[in-house]
Amino acid sequence: VNVSVLGLGLIGGSLLRALAAQGHPVTGYDLDPATRDLATRSLAESSSAEQRVAGSVAEAVEGAELVVLAVPLPAVASVAEELRGFAGLITDVTSVKSAVRERLAGRRFVGGHPMAGKETSSFAASDPRLFEGCAWVLCLEEETELGDWLALARLYTALGARVVPTTATEHDAAVARISHVPHLLASALSAQLEGNPLAGTLAAGSFRDGSRVAATRPALTAAMCSGNAAATREILDAVLAELQAYRDALDDLETLTARVSRPSALRRAWADRSYASVTVPPTRDALLSLGRDGGWIAGAGHPEAGLGGFRPETDRIGS
Amino acid sequence: VNVSVLGLGLIGGSLLRALAAQGHPVTGYDLDPATRDLATRSLAESSSAEQRVAGSVAEAVEGAELVVLAVPLPAVASVAEELRGFAGLITDVTSVKSAVRERLAGRRFVGGHPMAGKETSSFAASDPRLFEGCAWVLCLEEETELGDWLALARLYTALGARVVPTTATEHDAAVARISHVPHLLASALSAQLEGNPLAGTLAAGSFRDGSRVAATRPALTAAMCSGNAAATREILDAVLAELQAYRDALDDLETLTARVSRPSALRRAWADRSYASVTVPPTRDALLSLGRDGGWIAGAGHPEAGLGGFRPETDRIGS
Repeated sequence: VNVSVLGLGLIGGSLLRALAAQGHPVTGYDLDPATRDLATRSLAESSSAEQRVAGSVAEAVEGAELVVLAVPLPAVASVAEELRGFAGLITDVTSVKSAVRERLAGRRFVGGHPMAGKETSSFAASDPRLFEGCAWVLCLEEETELGDWLALARLYTALGARVVPTTATEHDAAVARISHVPHLLASALSAQLEGNPLAGTLAAGSFRDGSRVAATRPALTAAMCSGNAAATREILDAVLAELQAYRDALDDLETLTARVSRPSALRRAWADRSYASVTVPPTRDALLSLGRDGGWIAGAGHPEAGLGGFRPETDRIGS
Repeated sequence: VNVSVLGLGLIGGSLLRALAAQGHPVTGYDLDPATRDLATRSLAESSSAEQRVAGSVAEAVEGAELVVLAVPLPAVASVAEELRGFAGLITDVTSVKSAVRERLAGRRFVGGHPMAGKETSSFAASDPRLFEGCAWVLCLEEETELGDWLALARLYTALGARVVPTTATEHDAAVARISHVPHLLASALSAQLEGNPLAGTLAAGSFRDGSRVAATRPALTAAMCSGNAAATREILDAVLAELQAYRDALDDLETLTARVSRPSALRRAWADRSYASVTVPPTRDALLSLGRDGGWIAGAGHPEAGLGGFRPETDRIGS
């Protein structure tokens, strides 16, 4: 596949290098000349004339079959606009999917999201092996061409990613739970350091881990949560209700113990989860059902040959 | 100092071994015969007749100048009751201090809390070097004999601990911020896995770290929070208000960015904090002021010689 990667931060840079390492013809572009220089030098070490960094978006997408928008969320719409004349497949790597789906409506587009670090970290942090073992969401909507979806699944599973079939709506609800709301909780926890240096001195593991992602750039945290406002609000309300229930039980040891028991079991089951291999047919329904059950695609051969996937043994969760 | 350690879990067991390694006469006791056997074998490797495991509380405290109650919070009152005839100094290691202070009222007692792991983990996990670099709270109340406090500070700083002078009230407010409420946040976050295997598959760093301590035994989490209910409720309310403010700003990128900026700066300053050495006189006021400013005692020589302490450069916090 002839690929163009627009935006060479941590994700885009890692993807450029990973695809180059597999011998794909690939062209990168970044708005920042210093980043282009870094990427050019990185490619020069190991690649052919078909693997290069372009000086403009137009040059980068010339001849490409696939364009990966690896720019931050606020830049997706304007870069997509620059691609008005591009007839090939477009995908992205941002952390919200419904908003991007709206902005790309009418285009030949598959929304994507690799669960691998922060979008805005720089090319200097890129790693061609970043995607090994990482969950990579690919949205399979009513308007998605199954063939396009499978082509991306083949490309990304070949990089070691676990490709998760889902929809923008289901993705956004899930990442509100496991990423966006956690960022807000970490922030609210960090706010409690204000005016209390004693607390900072006593802070150990539970504070350190619970607050870690509060150190994320505020603009990035706000863009993720605000770009997924509806789902974030819904999960935040569920968390607020749960915390209120703990608050109400603070004077009643037995009730409080009962309230935190189920979440504790869920967390331990999550850490201990194990998987069984399954094979699913490459149909929309089978793929979406696999994703909804917590499964993913580990390899996508020729469509007619079926897909090798894994599905968690969900019966074990919470037992 | 002739020390008796009652309760040989992670903290008690580590303390027994650390004191034995420094040559102190020390006697341990645990309700569980298997734990006593383990501890006996551990001491046999390196110690003298003055370092041993006793078969009863009475035998363990005979001749002791200091008794360390290293039992879980619910057992503190009944073990203290067994020590009715003991005239020496008593300290404890539990994670709430006001409740324990009430139960030990009228005794020669200094409340303590090493910020090192979970109280209920077993002797098998004990480590004589557990306290190196760990913050160890010692409560300095109106009724505390300064000489008793300094004796404990000398003992624990010699094990490598950073001894933090504070009061039960200030301790309980601080640990609600950095331990008890974080446990409740982790639990409320883990509850969001319920019925959503897709979320479990997409969960990466922010969920893993933010939910980690939800895997703590529910009875322990509940006992900590319930045993410190008033402070936990107050900090939980502050966190709920902060989360509500984020919720209100979800549709307004600029306001949301502004709201999470200060916590982000606080978290980064906490991770990057640095310290300057200071010396404080061994007076109640100077010690409590040091603790309130985020400082600790790194070494306590002869009282008249002053105390070598460290105080964070608090001006840097949040800058």
